[in-house]
Order: sequence, then C-alpha cells, then structure tokens
Amino acid sequence: MRIVLVHGSWHTGAEWAPVAAALRAAGHEVHTPTVAGHGHGVDKCVDHAQCTQSIVDYLQEHALTDVVLLGHSYGGTIICKVVEAVPERIARLVFWNAFVPRDGESLLDNVPPHYRSLFQSLSEASPDGSVTMPFQVWREAFVNDADLAEAQRTYALLSSEPFQPMADKLDLKKFYSLTTPRSYINATEDIALPPGEWGWHPRMSGRLGLYRLVQLSGSHEVMFTAPERLARAIEEAGRD
Amino acid sequence: MRIVLVHGSWHTGAEWAPVAAALRAAGHEVHTPTVAGHGHGVDKCVDHAQCTQSIVDYLQEHALTDVVLLGHSYGGTIICKVVEAVPERIARLVFWNAFVPRDGESLLDNVPPHYRSLFQSLSEASPDGSVTMPFQVWREAFVNDADLAEAQRTYALLSSEPFQPMADKLDLKKFYSLTTPRSYINATEDIALPPGEWGWHPRMSGRLGLYRLVQLSGSHEVMFTAPERLARAIEEAGRD
Amino acid sequence: MRIVLVHGSWHTGAEWAPVAAALRAAGHEVHTPTVAGHGHGVDKCVDHAQCTQSIVDYLQEHALTDVVLLGHSYGGTIICKVVEAVPERIARLVFWNAFVPRDGESLLDNVPPHYRSLFQSLSEASPDGSVTMPFQVWREAFVNDADLAEAQRTYALLSSEPFQPMADKLDLKKFYSLTTPRSYINATEDIALPPGEWGWHPRMSGRLGLYRLVQLSGSHEVMFTAPERLARAIEEAGRD
Repeated sequence: MRIVLVHGSWHTGAEWAPVAAALRAAGHEVHTPTVAGHGHGVDKCVDHAQCTQSIVDYLQEHALTDVVLLGHSYGGTIICKVVEAVPERIARLVFWNAFVPRDGESLLDNVPPHYRSLFQSLSEASPDGSVTMPFQVWREAFVNDADLAEAQRTYALLSSEPFQPMADKLDLKKFYSLTTPRSYINATEDIALPPGEWGWHPRMSGRLGLYRLVQLSGSHEVMFTAPERLARAIEEAGRD
Repeated sequence: MRIVLVHGSWHTGAEWAPVAAALRAAGHEVHTPTVAGHGHGVDKCVDHAQCTQSIVDYLQEHALTDVVLLGHSYGGTIICKVVEAVPERIARLVFWNAFVPRDGESLLDNVPPHYRSLFQSLSEASPDGSVTMPFQVWREAFVNDADLAEAQRTYALLSSEPFQPMADKLDLKKFYSLTTPRSYINATEDIALPPGEWGWHPRMSGRLGLYRLVQLSGSHEVMFTAPERLARAIEEAGRD
Repeated sequence: MRIVLVHGSWHTGAEWAPVAAALRAAGHEVHTPTVAGHGHGVDKCVDHAQCTQSIVDYLQEHALTDVVLLGHSYGGTIICKVVEAVPERIARLVFWNAFVPRDGESLLDNVPPHYRSLFQSLSEASPDGSVTMPFQVWREAFVNDADLAEAQRTYALLSSEPFQPMADKLDLKKFYSLTTPRSYINATEDIALPPGEWGWHPRMSGRLGLYRLVQLSGSHEVMFTAPERLARAIEEAGRD
C-alpha cells in the first residue's frame, strides 16, 4: 500500500517514525508530511484551508495516486477536505480516532464545552494565539497507557497548535457526496475525547455511512506506546 | 455440552463447520441444522413460523434434550420462538450478536431505517422476493476483520435470504415469561448493526434480564475469521 | 507504590490475597483492610460514616502517606469520603468498576430500579437487615468469566452486606473540590451494573473530571478469575 499519514494537533510528521518504520518493514510505501503551521519555529498564523492545501500540495508534488490517506485526531478534518480537492488520488480514507465534522461544523464544535473554553483561553493567553498542551492533560488523557518517563519524553516532542484551524467552520457538502471507501480505527482506551456523549466512537465513525471498523487497545497516542500494534491496525484498515 | 447452532441470514448450517470442528475437538456434541427457506435451490417462500418449526422438528426428530441452543444474528429470533415451543429441551440459550426482539416486534423493527429500506427494495427487485447481500456491505460491515480474498471466498458461500421471516411480527409473551438461563456473546468489532443507538450490545443483551456476557474480538462473521476463538467463547457462554 | 485496596460489598480484605501477592511480587507495599460491618460474625448495624472511619483509622494507625487508594465497586463510595478526611495522605485515587456518587446521592441512587428493590426486599427479609447475594446473580452477572466450580468456591467466601451504607446519602462537596489525581479501571465484561444507561463506564468514570483510564478484560470479580491481570492494571492506574 501507499500510505500517507496526516498527524493531529501538537504533532508533526516526524513523530510517525516508529509507525512508519513498522509499515515499511511490511513492504508499504509511507509518507509523513507535516501540516502547515505545525512544528517548532513556524508561523502559527494559518487557517484550515492552508493546512489542507499543504497536504494537497504534497500529494501533487509527489504525484501520489492510489493513496490510503490516514488522518489522526485533528488530521481527520484535514483528510475530509483533501479528498474533496483530489478525490482521484485517494483509494481509501482511514480515520484513526479522528474528527469527522458534519457539514458546516468546526473541530471546536465537536469537543466538549470544557475543552472548547480551555483551548480558547490558552489561545488568548499565548503571544501568537496558539494553544499549548497542558502536561497533566497529556499524561492522563492522551498517553494514559504510558509510564511517566514516556509521558515526559513524548511531551517534549510536542509543539503549540494553531488556533484558527480548530475554529474554522468547514464546508463538507462534497465530502458527504463522495463514495471513497473509508475505515475507522478506534483505540479502546482513548479518552482524549471523553467516552460516551462526546466520544470518538461511534459518534464520529457513525457519520461515515458504510465504513470498516478496526479496533486496538491503547490510548490516543498509541503511536508512541505501541507503534507495531498501530501499524497492524493500519494495514487492516487500509487494505482493499 | 450438547450444542445446537442456529445460523443467521444468508447462511446455512454448513458454514459452521470450522466452529463445530473446534467444539467437537473439545469433546462437545454439535448440531448445525439449516433453517427452512435457507440455502441454494430451496423455496424462499417461507414465514417465520415455518423457520422456527424446522428447528423444533430437528430437536424432536433427534430427541435432543439438555440443549445449549445458540442463535447468531437473525438466528436469535428463531431461538426465542423455539424455546417457547420446547422449553423442556433447552438448558441454556446463547445469543451471539443476535436479535432479541421485544414482544410484537419483527427483525426489521430492530434494524436502522437505511437497512430496512435496503432490504425492502432488494426484496422487491428480486424474482422470488428474497434479499441478496451486497458485496460491499459484506466486505466492510460483516467481515471487516478479513482480507479481501477471505471476504470474497466467504461471500461465495452466501445464499439469498427470504424476506417474510424478517418482516413477521413475533408474539414473544411466553419467551419473556421463561427463566431459561441465557448468555450473550458480543464480538467487539461487529458493525453489522451500527454501534450505539442501533447496536447489538447492550441494546439486545439488555432485554434478556439476568444474563451472562462473554466478549471476543472480531466481526459479525468471526465464525470465518477466527473459528477457534469463537468456539472458546461458546464454551464460556454455554457452560453451567 | 504503597497501595491500599478497599473491597466492595459482600467482600472483606482477605479476598484480595491473590492480587496483593501479585503486586507484592512486583515490589509494592499492599494493605487490605476490612471495612467495618463486613465479614462473618460481625455486627451488620453500621452506617456509611462508620465504614469510612474504619479505613481512615487504618491509614492513621499505620501512619500511611503517599497512598494509592483503590476502591472496588461499593469501595468507591468509601474512598470518596476517605480522601475528604485525609487528603494529605493520598497520592492517587483508583476506582475499579466502582461507584462515584454525585454530591447528595447514595449507592442505591446509582443502581437500576430492579437492583434497588431486590436489595431492599432482601434486607427486609433478613434478621439483621443485611443483604445476601443470590447465587444466580453472582454466577451470571458477577463472575461471568468463571467456570461453575470457581463460581461456587468464590460464592462461599462472601458474607452478607450491611444495608445502611448503601442507603446513606453522601455529602461529597469536598470530594468534588479536591484535585487528587484519579484513575478508573474498567473490566470490559463487567455486567454487575448493566452496560449502557446504568453502566460503570463512562457513567461513573465521567464524573471524575480529568482522569486516567485503564481497561482489562474480565468480569466484576476479575480479582478471582485473573488476579495477575488485575495487578498489572492496578500498576498502570496507580503509577505517577
């Protein structure tokens, strides 16, 4: 398979390295572009359209076709828009604990009120309007399956997240008219969104119409804590 | 244990072979009758009462008692009516991702609206009024844990499903008065019914009153993808 | 870690032995006090405050600090009140399929109506007002992952449960103001509370605010059926 992995908030493409290595060892071609406005030392003043365009550009510059396009978390909002732009390049969409906004919604419309106000106030308190992940939220709700040393090591890899792409309302009429095959990977201990009323699955997955479900044990950041296990789930989700 | 396995829609008793072999290897007696109106080259013009009677006949002709009676999917509606007819023969009911209709309901009353209209229109388009499983639904929502070759191999085993038994409203007053012990097996990646509001568990299991839960990983058709694992779950569900 | 395990209804501290042994083998200090009014041959006429006080006394008499305080089931209501009394002694709270009542609620307010009336009528029928666990409920809904022999062996370990602590309304204003770190362990086949509307997770866990989730396969009594597995989950839930 030709797999393009689109990271989530606070991440860049670099953190996929262990997962990408596991997939390459199984014979797959793996790309890990970084979304515009993400990483250290880059301009955080980007909107959702620019983020999307950076991935579309990557696909076009590398002339990639027959792509299994995976989005993690916030990356789900990106792949929804990327497939609208270049549907002919995409063989299958894979959402891994990812947002699937309804037409007209933003990412922020899809998180519980306490997260919405937290992100808003962190953005307002920041010199460049970006949002820094608080360590305790990371440790308890994002890498709940890691030990403290791994939680600290991975926290140090994070960079602040631009706010505007979370807030932009997305026109997804075309996305909801497409029939590109799609899969949802659910990590069963993921509490980055609180399970239940505001949870990932089946709230987000259920919006995909006919889709394939793959589950694995692990947290929202099982890419760090069990990259081989996630690679196997990506293979099951991405194959024909 | 003496186990009678009642298959679901689009299946016959023959497809149980790998599960039955695993159970027999563990010392159990296993029966896999085919429900009336199911399979290739048989009259699809049957109603739910005839389907039930075919299994009651099987139990009586073979003089089976102390039976662990398992129903898969649509087979759940059959075992609810079989135990009404011959409660003295049944030691325990086991529902494996199976329908447990409420009194007065049909199977169709228990599936989401988009499945109801799909089955209706497939039936109307068919010369004998039966319902053929669309391959993409099979591949994504029924055998989501299989590779493509296994999805194609198992799809070729299916036969069209009579429509009337899905539509018949079932009088289940006696079923809901019985105290036959009962278990529910839930495969955690089963999306044949969409998880959540219309899901198998706990929507169906919760109607059983006091019941035993057994879970295993796998799809709606884990009988094909992991027959040994399903056999172990059946043992845990069926034992005293 | 210094771990204090607070048992649930019908139990005493003694039944933790296999779990405690597994934790001690991994280098942890483990305490398993028995809550007042629990066990054979003791006065069942206790209220919730006396139950709480018995655990507070234990912590103070043994001068325990930096405690990972775990409550199982009913034990959740105890640890909520213990941390109010001695917050300076507690490093982290761990709720294992445990009740987390809202301010002003009793345990009985948090169980489905059929359990509420069952416990009430069992209490009224008992000479000392206590509640005896019915064997069939134990076998099907509490140790659903055990075989019959193990269900019988463990049933013989149980003692009748005082009723008043279930019925006492708890003032939990201070608990809900504390920021003691907290984890929730969920056994995925636990049906002691019916999954869904009345289930453990995410209904109870979701009341904890920012918390860490750990899941393991097993029933409400996985302490008997897989004590090593539970010990590993306690380590993941209790560590910093």
